[in-house]
Amino acid sequence: MNRKELIDLIFNKKSFLCVGLDTDLTKIPSHLLQEEDPAFAFNKAIIDATIDYAVAYKPNLAFYEAQGIKGMVSLKKTMNYLHSLDKKAFTIADAKRGDIGNTSQQYAKAFLDDAGDFGFDSMTIAPYMGADSVTPFLTYPDKWVILLALTSNKGAFDFQFIENQENGNKLFEEVLLRSQKWATHENMMYVVGATQANMLAEIRKVIPYHFLLVPGVGAQGGSLEEVCKYGINSDCGLLINASRSILYASNGTNFAEEAAEEARSMQLEMEQQLSFIR
Amino acid sequence: MNRKELIDLIFNKKSFLCVGLDTDLTKIPSHLLQEEDPAFAFNKAIIDATIDYAVAYKPNLAFYEAQGIKGMVSLKKTMNYLHSLDKKAFTIADAKRGDIGNTSQQYAKAFLDDAGDFGFDSMTIAPYMGADSVTPFLTYPDKWVILLALTSNKGAFDFQFIENQENGNKLFEEVLLRSQKWATHENMMYVVGATQANMLAEIRKVIPYHFLLVPGVGAQGGSLEEVCKYGINSDCGLLINASRSILYASNGTNFAEEAAEEARSMQLEMEQQLSFIR
Repeated sequence: MNRKELIDLIFNKKSFLCVGLDTDLTKIPSHLLQEEDPAFAFNKAIIDATIDYAVAYKPNLAFYEAQGIKGMVSLKKTMNYLHSLDKKAFTIADAKRGDIGNTSQQYAKAFLDDAGDFGFDSMTIAPYMGADSVTPFLTYPDKWVILLALTSNKGAFDFQFIENQENGNKLFEEVLLRSQKWATHENMMYVVGATQANMLAEIRKVIPYHFLLVPGVGAQGGSLEEVCKYGINSDCGLLINASRSILYASNGTNFAEEAAEEARSMQLEMEQQLSFIR
Repeated sequence: MNRKELIDLIFNKKSFLCVGLDTDLTKIPSHLLQEEDPAFAFNKAIIDATIDYAVAYKPNLAFYEAQGIKGMVSLKKTMNYLHSLDKKAFTIADAKRGDIGNTSQQYAKAFLDDAGDFGFDSMTIAPYMGADSVTPFLTYPDKWVILLALTSNKGAFDFQFIENQENGNKLFEEVLLRSQKWATHENMMYVVGATQANMLAEIRKVIPYHFLLVPGVGAQGGSLEEVCKYGINSDCGLLINASRSILYASNGTNFAEEAAEEARSMQLEMEQQLSFIR
């Protein structure tokens, strides 16, 4: 999916909600455990319940890998299901990969190649190993790298705020700056945690046009309104992720209705924010 | 496998060779492509040919994930085969994972849990997201985190050498220093590329006791002798990885014999290095 298609999707659905499919078998409603493939049954119900309110889905690879081969089969079925729908959504492999060039090429093939088992539109990448660990992901047309810049967790303060002796830039600012040479706002986005909303105004000075994938609203405590205040641009430029607050809104048989309700409530807030810019 | 067992293995086999199983279907001998599971057939032959000369095997997850579900089945069979052998080897999931705490827990379960499909002894972890992205991997007894410090690729120079304004430490030194609070030399190792052998003397001042996993000897151009000169300690403290130079020593029907020859040649060099310390 290219940038124009993504923006059209956002303004058509009046939403920039990304639903994080962190599907945890110890948290899904217990009646689903009798299904042949509980993780897929859960995902399918969540997707059906939220597709009118969400523009993106972000399976978190860890939760599938934790179930071994079985989990990867659930992921494949989930992606096949998303690809089969008339109602489109942008897909993100939340994988946080990154390795030397010939290895990153293999990770790109694994998750971005449409001839493979998954065919995601994008994947999250860790920047620690530098340019040649990131650029192999940029060779697939209309596919995206979503590079970690400033994450939403407490550990973000361990390294991401270290200031460069040469110029005073924080490490995450160096990631934003140097990666400008590797890609454009047509094929790269950045992860910026909602728990760091106050940093968004500064970040927008460096990257006014790029889309930001913003985790941390909901269970992690970030505010949607704050994120929009400092982070929205004239194309929207935001994908705000919610995982646990939607997936586990209820653990009863009404889980899908409650998930829809939660997604709908976020979409309404987003519709209002979008009305301020177009 | 705990530290004492690993050291015993090294001095018994007189080797600290790690064979990187970067199994690429476009590079393995073509006659194997007729096998039901070519990647596993190749790995099994390589393991059989090298187990007397190697103390560790390091499947690179990307190469299995690139084959989708099928690749993960090859990986599972490879791990089952390694676990079934009387001759022991330390196993490393070269995964370079790292995410917020609840997600890292899932990655740990995926690769370190003996009840899961793989049951590795250790896995490589990227430090960018800080303490809470790393510590969930430290909860399995006798299992190890191998944290990226200074990598062997050109991109290592993009961020890993940024100097901290507060104290002049390079980013990779900050990773070494701060991670000392999270773990000990009994459950953490570090990745230090052989292409940076001249940095090893400095690194050993910070972490004299830890094991280092050293990629970059062979295809990437690092020297085994240089690495030992600056990096070896009284317990050996090194696992030196070779992947392509062993796996693809020949692409004919004699590939296993040639791989054995290459591994044997490295083992002999290592035996000599070990004789200097014990």
